Amino acid sequence: MRPLPEPARETLTLAPVLHALGDPVRLELVRRAWADPGSTCSALADGLDVPMSTLSNHWRIMREAGVISMAVDGRHRRIRLRGDDLSRRFPGLLDPILRLAEAEPQHGAPSPGRPSISENVR
Amino acid sequence: MRPLPEPARETLTLAPVLHALGDPVRLELVRRAWADPGSTCSALADGLDVPMSTLSNHWRIMREAGVISMAVDGRHRRIRLRGDDLSRRFPGLLDPILRLAEAEPQHGAPSPGRPSISENVR
Repeated sequence: MRPLPEPARETLTLAPVLHALGDPVRLELVRRAWADPGSTCSALADGLDVPMSTLSNHWRIMREAGVISMAVDGRHRRIRLRGDDLSRRFPGLLDPILRLAEAEPQHGAPSPGRPSISENVR
Repeated sequence: MRPLPEPARETLTLAPVLHALGDPVRLELVRRAWADPGSTCSALADGLDVPMSTLSNHWRIMREAGVISMAVDGRHRRIRLRGDDLSRRFPGLLDPILRLAEAEPQHGAPSPGRPSISENVR
């Protein structure tokens, strides 16, 4: 696997990390990546009604902020939440966010009949 | 004082709150608003090298996300961090963010020779 460039842990700053998490689709992708380490971009985005180019942009924003690692694995790109780096750099930040994201109605969770990003969002 | 419209606590969602906090200037304004409740927009923005129109936009984003309350007080606009609402709606979220923001080098920290409100901020 070939890892894509990412910022070193000690260079991470808070605002870009919050920005990377401050979008419903990105928050859902992070939640899924946390639950399913090493999964592929396409598997993690399954059922989200988001254009591929938008998804690529989301992954890039999260990688550049230091939230995820991305590695090229043949035709796939594998994602890993940088939980360890984030917890060391920003103690106490990630856990409540993941917990709160988990507790909210999920963005893009497929609903019966028609997968939609907005149907189950209050 | 005339309060400007803001979302009710029970309608707040996580992603817009993280987005509102996910900008270095907004994070610094929130940090200052937390330290100085009821202060005015202009006092809180003192020393930040940001155009007025950009600042207005920052305040609006934070108000609409539910991060701050804003009230018109004569010619001033007074800001209050919605700490109570945020803590009840998103337990465990705000404290680490404020603590981490406090610990980071501040956006808008003055350069030598130029007086600023943030002189005594790390």
